[in-house]
Amino acid sequence: MDNSKRIEAALLAAIEAQEGAGGPPKLAQAIRHAVFPGGARIRPHLCLAVAQACAADDLDLAASAGAAIELLHCASLVHDDLPCFDNAATRRGRPSVFAAYGERLAVLAGDALIVTAFQSVAASAATRAERLVPLIKTISEAVGAPHGIVAGQAWECEPRVALTEYQRAKTGALFVAATAAGAQAAGASADPWRALGEWLGEAYQVADDIRDVASDPETLGKPTGQDATHGRPSSAAELGLSGAIQYFDQLIAYASASIPSCRGSAQLRTLVRAEAKRLVPVEMTRLIAPTVTRIAA
Amino acid sequence: MDNSKRIEAALLAAIEAQEGAGGPPKLAQAIRHAVFPGGARIRPHLCLAVAQACAADDLDLAASAGAAIELLHCASLVHDDLPCFDNAATRRGRPSVFAAYGERLAVLAGDALIVTAFQSVAASAATRAERLVPLIKTISEAVGAPHGIVAGQAWECEPRVALTEYQRAKTGALFVAATAAGAQAAGASADPWRALGEWLGEAYQVADDIRDVASDPETLGKPTGQDATHGRPSSAAELGLSGAIQYFDQLIAYASASIPSCRGSAQLRTLVRAEAKRLVPVEMTRLIAPTVTRIAA
Repeated sequence: MDNSKRIEAALLAAIEAQEGAGGPPKLAQAIRHAVFPGGARIRPHLCLAVAQACAADDLDLAASAGAAIELLHCASLVHDDLPCFDNAATRRGRPSVFAAYGERLAVLAGDALIVTAFQSVAASAATRAERLVPLIKTISEAVGAPHGIVAGQAWECEPRVALTEYQRAKTGALFVAATAAGAQAAGASADPWRALGEWLGEAYQVADDIRDVASDPETLGKPTGQDATHGRPSSAAELGLSGAIQYFDQLIAYASASIPSCRGSAQLRTLVRAEAKRLVPVEMTRLIAPTVTRIAA
Repeated sequence: MDNSKRIEAALLAAIEAQEGAGGPPKLAQAIRHAVFPGGARIRPHLCLAVAQACAADDLDLAASAGAAIELLHCASLVHDDLPCFDNAATRRGRPSVFAAYGERLAVLAGDALIVTAFQSVAASAATRAERLVPLIKTISEAVGAPHGIVAGQAWECEPRVALTEYQRAKTGALFVAATAAGAQAAGASADPWRALGEWLGEAYQVADDIRDVASDPETLGKPTGQDATHGRPSSAAELGLSGAIQYFDQLIAYASASIPSCRGSAQLRTLVRAEAKRLVPVEMTRLIAPTVTRIAA
């Protein structure tokens, strides 16, 4: 089974496990809407790839950990789109959960997704309970306070925000969790893998800032210009568009260099390079910032 | 250490573990506001009492599981009070989290509390990882879809609701989790303890319905008449006030009778009786329904 199929199967298993008979139908629909069809599933791909690089004996557990991280990512998107935050009517090119099912079901679907994430990884760890303790520590730290995505979002409610701390919590934390959980699901140490998650997470956030300025809503599948509209910190605003693109390329180079030497390091470097091209395509930067020389070009 | 102190210590440990340095201060304040000072902490008390009845070798794990259930209860209250649900400005006699910190921080504090619940029980199970898998299964089923509190709340978004299913999910599920988790934290089987949680959960919901009609906002610490205002199903509306009080007494009798015979059964029966008197005091029913003869009177 290839990794994409593994990931979708793990996500489906997690969602089906909490559907069951006799539950409220609209909540179940709203939860499915939040998870399928998905985006690039970069976090679970990263988790699985690290587990494979660590010679994992149990790819099901790694897929389940990656799926849990994806479910938490989906939960954060559902809550981010609420009227009190971004008030976003579209997401991934179709109505956001809030737009399709209303505010109440969007709050509840996000809550249910957080619960399902922990539920599904615990179910998959039944025969390897000793790995569940570090996995839950890694995953919960990436989502909760003081440095996870919830904390990242909460920085928007503070009068002063440090850009690095904000972005690290809002985006970087789940990438670090993806690499660390991949190692832990394989029974390996998480520490050598955190740097990869950190660099990639920062690169991803910078790419998001770039596309928020440089892309159009149709290509992006969600409204653009949101950082300026909501007065949010943005590396594109701070460094200029050309500066942000160069910074992005630098971060990708650091990410690639941070990969510990191991059996799967070449495969991981390929994944990082492919992801960089997907996030900030050379063709896009040629149009919007023709004077910038790309490292990857 | 008595059980109340154990519970407050476990809650404090869970909250402090996710405060740390460098996080967004208002989120930390909103989370504390949601948890301290608490209500009767009936769910963790029940969890600990069942663990003790099962001759638990590790009361810290039981206290942590009970605290996790209480944190999830607090999370549900924070989200229930949001403008899109009850729009409640007060809770436990003071401003709700939403009223004190705004809608965005109320959404985020609820999210963070869900995460912290799983995080803290996993941390406490470090040396007993094999108990963590059933504990997370029990706790997550009580909170998520299709039969947990999130599902219960989601029934309010459906055109038709079965009263029993709604109340079982919205209130009963966490009581069942409290008794089941108490047994599991002690390394015992959860099954013999589920009936106690089911009867108590239903009794608690009926008591809530009664007090929503019969109490005043000052005594209750939150607005009354909410079921009628929001058109929610209510046993007081369905059975009449006298009928609801008699039903409550019957449920308490069933709860008491369901306690398996064990070392701590007498202590548990005392807890159930005390809780019944706290929930629907005889003095209150003498004023509002003088013709009803109380079993406990």
